[in-house]
Amino acid sequence: MNKRGRPPRDDGEVKNKQYRLRLSDGEESILDELSTEYGMPKAEILRRGLRMQHNLLRHTG
Amino acid sequence: MNKRGRPPRDDGEVKNKQYRLRLSDGEESILDELSTEYGMPKAEILRRGLRMQHNLLRHTG
Repeated sequence: MNKRGRPPRDDGEVKNKQYRLRLSDGEESILDELSTEYGMPKAEILRRGLRMQHNLLRHTG
Repeated sequence: MNKRGRPPRDDGEVKNKQYRLRLSDGEESILDELSTEYGMPKAEILRRGLRMQHNLLRHTG
């Protein structure tokens, strides 16, 4: 029998961990600015920040 | 009359915006690693990523 249901999006791994993140007004406006500047969703900006820090840690730390 | 209730923490701005962020297993493990490495809460790691990107944008963009 075939698989049913919505197929996984082909944009990468399944995202199955949820965080609730609290931001100040200042941080919120930074997130808005970055999202607009890079044309990326805010969640993707937050993930990008993770990857950047990980790369820095690997290369310098 | 005096103000009542818990006083604001003096660690910075009030954080009154909430985001729900979904992470993949891989991103989750990166977040764990960074939190352990820097001895900072995971939420602070995510905020740090925002500040880093903002600094980069200001200095290079």
